Amino acid sequence: MDRKNKIEVCFTPATYDVFRNDEAIVVVVDILRATTAICSAFMNGAERIIPVGTLEEAKAYKELGFLVAAERDGIVKDFADFGNSPFNFTKERVEGKPIVYSTTNGTNTIMMAKDSYKVLIGAYLNISTISKYILSEQRDVLIFCAGWKNKFNLEDSLFAGALAQQVLEDSNFYTICDSALASIDLWKMAKPNLIGYIEKAAQRHRLKKNKLDDVLEFCHTQNLTNIIPVLEGNYLVPLKFN
Amino acid sequence: MDRKNKIEVCFTPATYDVFRNDEAIVVVVDILRATTAICSAFMNGAERIIPVGTLEEAKAYKELGFLVAAERDGIVKDFADFGNSPFNFTKERVEGKPIVYSTTNGTNTIMMAKDSYKVLIGAYLNISTISKYILSEQRDVLIFCAGWKNKFNLEDSLFAGALAQQVLEDSNFYTICDSALASIDLWKMAKPNLIGYIEKAAQRHRLKKNKLDDVLEFCHTQNLTNIIPVLEGNYLVPLKFN
Repeated sequence: MDRKNKIEVCFTPATYDVFRNDEAIVVVVDILRATTAICSAFMNGAERIIPVGTLEEAKAYKELGFLVAAERDGIVKDFADFGNSPFNFTKERVEGKPIVYSTTNGTNTIMMAKDSYKVLIGAYLNISTISKYILSEQRDVLIFCAGWKNKFNLEDSLFAGALAQQVLEDSNFYTICDSALASIDLWKMAKPNLIGYIEKAAQRHRLKKNKLDDVLEFCHTQNLTNIIPVLEGNYLVPLKFN
Repeated sequence: MDRKNKIEVCFTPATYDVFRNDEAIVVVVDILRATTAICSAFMNGAERIIPVGTLEEAKAYKELGFLVAAERDGIVKDFADFGNSPFNFTKERVEGKPIVYSTTNGTNTIMMAKDSYKVLIGAYLNISTISKYILSEQRDVLIFCAGWKNKFNLEDSLFAGALAQQVLEDSNFYTICDSALASIDLWKMAKPNLIGYIEKAAQRHRLKKNKLDDVLEFCHTQNLTNIIPVLEGNYLVPLKFN
């Protein structure tokens, strides 16, 4: 049988237009820290997440009484309840509640993909569930890395490689995408000592500088949840998938 | 001594704006095949190369009597004298002559960087000379990959890794650029069997399909020339550097 579903990797929002495929499942990735935080929020019972692009929108929601997570360059905004450390989204705080969420790279990336067949939020926390979901759907897949201010970043690309490798084990999937191939090779290289490898990533230095690097290990822990955050209209909602 | 010159890698023209640094030396790379072909042309005595973006411009030059190299997606245009196989630029054809040159990704990439301190044309053919030139200048460096239609490609990124690694051996250079780090790791992985590694690159398949893959080995041969093609105004001219 010919392999019929292709999988591709887009390294940054700046190249989304050339990869855009509205028939595809798009997996949005921002490992440090937005998509990891979103998965954590749903693990802890958040009802839905409202991604907003601008701080003005986030502020307006705050004034309406919403719980608001908002940061820029890793720093929590004054008006917000918290930033995007996954450790902020505790059960106590988020269970049963909607959360408004605005981050440097993550939320805009999610909204760019909104016309796709499906937008899923991917992180190591739910990587195998995402992979199983993709195989159950049998469609083209685009792994869309949030990157850093339109630049390639290591931590998202490594995740892309890890996920692409899992999916390509299915004989219905193929890739002729150089960025997917590069991601897989980087993943193979990094995998034996992932945290050690991530030491050199630019974002790791940014987080350390701001004393926000306590999340590194958690953000690279696989399979803590079988919930996939899915975009429905303008909201992210939790999809339990087994 | 603090390392004072940074080296960065831009994977595609789509992200040039976020890397743009007009004080830097920009090394433009399109290994398969434009920048390899340009180096070959100067090895064989071309007087200068006039890069043009559109086929209309190339055609207009042809009507004025210029020697014209023009291709799209690897296919030579009817009106042109030849395409962008480095084997086309023979001594017999090009010695002492100006050449007008338009290719899918390469020529537009060169012109995007024209306001930089210097624009150099890089290929394996002149990699060590480029590296020596960079070290003699002691300035920031941006390796600018032409990519494929605004996508990342393997062959240009591998070259970027090879060059970045050479330059970073000098204690005045540093990088905190994730794409430079990824390129270096991909280069380390590919280097022991470079032609074997390139087998999986998308462009390698495109060239094979069009029976243009006779150039693979030549395009990955190091240090055949000490000439660096340099942009001066609207022309590329040869700079001999020892």
